[in-house]
Amino acid sequence: MVQKMSAEFFGTFWLVFGGCGSAVLAAAFPELGIGFAGVALAFGLTVLTMAYAVGGISGGHFNPAVSLGLAVGGRFSWSELPLYWVAQLLGAFCAAGMLFLIASGMDGWSPGSFASNGYGDLSPGGYSMQAALLIEIVLTAGFLVVILGSTSKKVPGGFAPISIGLALTLIHLISIPVTNTSVNPARSTGVAFYADTAAVSQLWLFWLAPLVGAAIGAAVWRYLLSPDESLDNIGGEAAE
Amino acid sequence: MVQKMSAEFFGTFWLVFGGCGSAVLAAAFPELGIGFAGVALAFGLTVLTMAYAVGGISGGHFNPAVSLGLAVGGRFSWSELPLYWVAQLLGAFCAAGMLFLIASGMDGWSPGSFASNGYGDLSPGGYSMQAALLIEIVLTAGFLVVILGSTSKKVPGGFAPISIGLALTLIHLISIPVTNTSVNPARSTGVAFYADTAAVSQLWLFWLAPLVGAAIGAAVWRYLLSPDESLDNIGGEAAE
Amino acid sequence: MVQKMSAEFFGTFWLVFGGCGSAVLAAAFPELGIGFAGVALAFGLTVLTMAYAVGGISGGHFNPAVSLGLAVGGRFSWSELPLYWVAQLLGAFCAAGMLFLIASGMDGWSPGSFASNGYGDLSPGGYSMQAALLIEIVLTAGFLVVILGSTSKKVPGGFAPISIGLALTLIHLISIPVTNTSVNPARSTGVAFYADTAAVSQLWLFWLAPLVGAAIGAAVWRYLLSPDESLDNIGGEAAE
Amino acid sequence: MVQKMSAEFFGTFWLVFGGCGSAVLAAAFPELGIGFAGVALAFGLTVLTMAYAVGGISGGHFNPAVSLGLAVGGRFSWSELPLYWVAQLLGAFCAAGMLFLIASGMDGWSPGSFASNGYGDLSPGGYSMQAALLIEIVLTAGFLVVILGSTSKKVPGGFAPISIGLALTLIHLISIPVTNTSVNPARSTGVAFYADTAAVSQLWLFWLAPLVGAAIGAAVWRYLLSPDESLDNIGGEAAE
Repeated sequence: MVQKMSAEFFGTFWLVFGGCGSAVLAAAFPELGIGFAGVALAFGLTVLTMAYAVGGISGGHFNPAVSLGLAVGGRFSWSELPLYWVAQLLGAFCAAGMLFLIASGMDGWSPGSFASNGYGDLSPGGYSMQAALLIEIVLTAGFLVVILGSTSKKVPGGFAPISIGLALTLIHLISIPVTNTSVNPARSTGVAFYADTAAVSQLWLFWLAPLVGAAIGAAVWRYLLSPDESLDNIGGEAAE
Repeated sequence: MVQKMSAEFFGTFWLVFGGCGSAVLAAAFPELGIGFAGVALAFGLTVLTMAYAVGGISGGHFNPAVSLGLAVGGRFSWSELPLYWVAQLLGAFCAAGMLFLIASGMDGWSPGSFASNGYGDLSPGGYSMQAALLIEIVLTAGFLVVILGSTSKKVPGGFAPISIGLALTLIHLISIPVTNTSVNPARSTGVAFYADTAAVSQLWLFWLAPLVGAAIGAAVWRYLLSPDESLDNIGGEAAE
Repeated sequence: MVQKMSAEFFGTFWLVFGGCGSAVLAAAFPELGIGFAGVALAFGLTVLTMAYAVGGISGGHFNPAVSLGLAVGGRFSWSELPLYWVAQLLGAFCAAGMLFLIASGMDGWSPGSFASNGYGDLSPGGYSMQAALLIEIVLTAGFLVVILGSTSKKVPGGFAPISIGLALTLIHLISIPVTNTSVNPARSTGVAFYADTAAVSQLWLFWLAPLVGAAIGAAVWRYLLSPDESLDNIGGEAAE
Repeated sequence: MVQKMSAEFFGTFWLVFGGCGSAVLAAAFPELGIGFAGVALAFGLTVLTMAYAVGGISGGHFNPAVSLGLAVGGRFSWSELPLYWVAQLLGAFCAAGMLFLIASGMDGWSPGSFASNGYGDLSPGGYSMQAALLIEIVLTAGFLVVILGSTSKKVPGGFAPISIGLALTLIHLISIPVTNTSVNPARSTGVAFYADTAAVSQLWLFWLAPLVGAAIGAAVWRYLLSPDESLDNIGGEAAE
C-alpha cells in the first residue's frame, strides 16, 4: 500500500505540476506562448506518461473522481478509496506549493487565479454556474467511459495510457474557457488555496460535479455498455 | 444490438460534443484560443478515445458514411446499417442540444454558425459548392481507405484507433476553411438545426458527398488495393 | 505489382493532398490558421495513416528518396525502384491537380508558391542555396535512419508508422522556414508546376539533396549502426 | 561499443539539431511560427523517433543525466557511463555546429541566445537562479521516473519511446519560459558556445541540476516505487 500511495502521490504531483505549471508559466507568454491548446496537451501528457510509469503499481488514477468511478464500475476496491484520496490530495498540494515557489521567482509576479477552476466571475469566459456544472458532469462521465472501456479485456494491452491521457487533452480542448477544466477535485483543491481570487469558495462544484459525473459514466459503462463484463478485474491497472 | 446502438450513440455524442464543442467554446477565445489546429486535434481525439473505449462493442463507426463504407467494403452487415444510422443521429442531436445549453450559459452569446458545415456564403473561407463537393468526397474516400486498411488483418492489433482518429485530425487540418469539415453526415445534421444561418438548406451536400466518398474509398480498398482479402471479417471491430 | 503501385499512388496522393493542402488552404487563415506547426502535423499524419493502411501492401514509401534509401539499405529491391518512382510521381501530380481545382474555388485566389519548395528568393525565410542543400541532406539522412531503425527486427511490430510519420512532422517543424521542407522529390515535383513562381527551376535541388541524404542515412544505418543485420528482410513492410 | 557510441552520437545529434533547430529556425517566424508548443513537440519527437530507431542498440539515452539516472537506478553499467557522455557531447557539438552553419545562411542573421539555456538575465521570462535550479531538478527527476517506469517489465513492450518522448514534450511545455528547458547537459553545452550571450558562464547549473534531479528521480523509483524490481535488467533498452 505504501507503493500504491507513493505512485498516486507522484502521479498527481506530476499532473498538477505539469498541467497547472504549463498554464501558469507558459500559456500566456508574449507571442510564443502555448495557449489553451498547449495546456490541454500538457495535462494529457502528464497522465499518459505517469500511467505508463506507475500505472502498473497503483492503477494510475491521479484523480479522486477516477478512483470513485472505478469503484462504482467494479474495478477498484472501496476500502482503498480513502487512502487513494489522501495520497492524491497530498500530491496536488505539494505540486501547487512547488509551482508557487518557482513562479514567484519572476520579478513582479502575482498568482492571479493560479490556474484554479471557477464559474461565473471566475470562469475564463464568464460562463454560469449551471453551464459549469453541466460540462464538468458530462466530461467526467465521458472520461470514465473512456477509462473503463480502454482498460477492458477487449482492448489489446498497452494502449490505455494513450487513450486516457489524450482523453484528458480532449477534455481540456473543449472546456478551459468554461471552468478552466477540472474533472479532477484534487487538481482543483491543490491550487485553489494559492489563488488571489475566491476560488476556494467555488471548490464545492469541482468536487460535486466530477464525482457525480464519474459515477454516472461508470454506471453507463457497467450496466449499459458492458453488462457482461464480470467483476473479476478488481485492481485492473491502467497500464496493463 | 442494444449495446451496439448504445456504443454508437455515446461515441457519436462524444464526437459531436467534443469536436463541435471545442470549435464553439474554445477555437476563437481571445489570444489563447485553440484555433483550427486545436479543433482538428479535438475531433480526432474523440474518435481515438471512443474507438478504444467502445470499438470492441460496435466497431466504433460514429458516422453514417463510415457505416456505409464498411458495408460496401464487406466488413459490416447491410441489415444493421439503418439502426446504426438512427443511433448515430440521436447521439449527434443530443450532443448538439447539450452543447447549446452550455454555450448559452455565457452572457450575450449567440449561436452564429454553431460549428455547422457550409459552402458558398457559409464556407469559412468562401469556397464554392463545387470545391466543397470535391474536398468532402476526396477526404471521405481517403478516410475509408485508412479505416479499412488499418483494420485489416495485415496490421498488428490495437493501432487502428490511433490511425483512424489521427486521420480525422488530418482531414480537419486540411479542410476546415473550405466546408468547416464534415465527412460525417450525423455531425453535420446534429448542429445544423441550432445554427442562426441557413445551414439546414445545405445539409444535402454533407450527406451526399461523404456517402459517395465513403463508397468510392471502400470500393478502391476492396477491389483495387486488397482484392485478396476475403469477406470473413464481417463485424471486424476498429479496436481489435 | 498493380497493388503495390496502387498503394504507392494513393499514399503519395494522400501525402501531397494532405500536406500541401493544409499549407495552401489552412496555414494562413486569418486568426485561426494552423500555421507551420499545423502543416507539420498534417504531413506527418498523412504518412502515419497511410503507412498503417497500405504499408502492408507496398511498404509505404510514398517518397522516391525513401525508396532509394531502402534499396541502399538492402531492404528494397532495386528492380522495383523505377515503377515505385512512377507511381509516386503520378500520385503527386494528381494530388496537386485536385488541390489546385479545390483551392481555385475561392474567389480571387491565386496559387502563389502553391506550397512548392525553394531556396534563395523562394525560401520562406530567405535562406541560401547552401543552407537549403545542407538541411535537406541532413534531415533526409536522419529520416532514413529512423525508417530503417524503426522497421528493424529489434523493434516490436506495429510502431513504425508512428515513429516514421512523426519523424516527418519533426522534420517540418524544423525546416519549413528554410526550404518549405521537401525531403521528398515527388512532393516537390507535383506542386512546382502549379506555382506562380520559378519553383520548377529549383527542382533539381529537391531531387539531389533528398536522394543524397537518403543514401547517406541508409549507409550510416547499414554499415555503422547495424552491420550485423542481414539482408533477408528485403521487402520489409513499414507497417509490420 | 562502437555501435552503442554511434547510436548515442546520432541520437543526441538529432535531439539537438531537431529541438534547438526548431527553436532557432521556426519558433518566431512571423505569424506562422511554431512557438514554444511547436518547439516542445519537436524536442519530444526527436527522442520518440530515435528511441525507436536506435534504442535497441544503445538504450537510447541521448542525455548525460539520463545515463547517470539509469546507472543510479541499476539499469545501466557505471563503467560505460564515461564513453556514453563523450558520445553524447560530440553529437551535441556537431549538431550545434551544423545548425549554426545553416542558420547563418539567412542574410543578416545573428545567433542571439542560439537556443541556449539560462537563468536571471538569460531566462526567457526573467526567472531567478533559484527558480531555474528547482524546476530543472523537479522535471529531470520526473523524467527519470517516467523513463524507469515505462521501461520496467510491467509495461507491455514497445510503448516506452512514446511515453519518454512525450514526457520531454511535456517538460518543455512547462519550462521553456523559465530556463529555455535543459534537463540535458549535453544539449545545453552543445549550443552554449555559439550564443552571443554569457550562456557558457551559466552552464554549471545545467549540469548540476539535471544530474542531481536524475539521481533523485532514479532513487525514488528504485527504492520507493519499485523496491522489488531486481537489478537483472542492466542494459535494458528503451525501445524494448
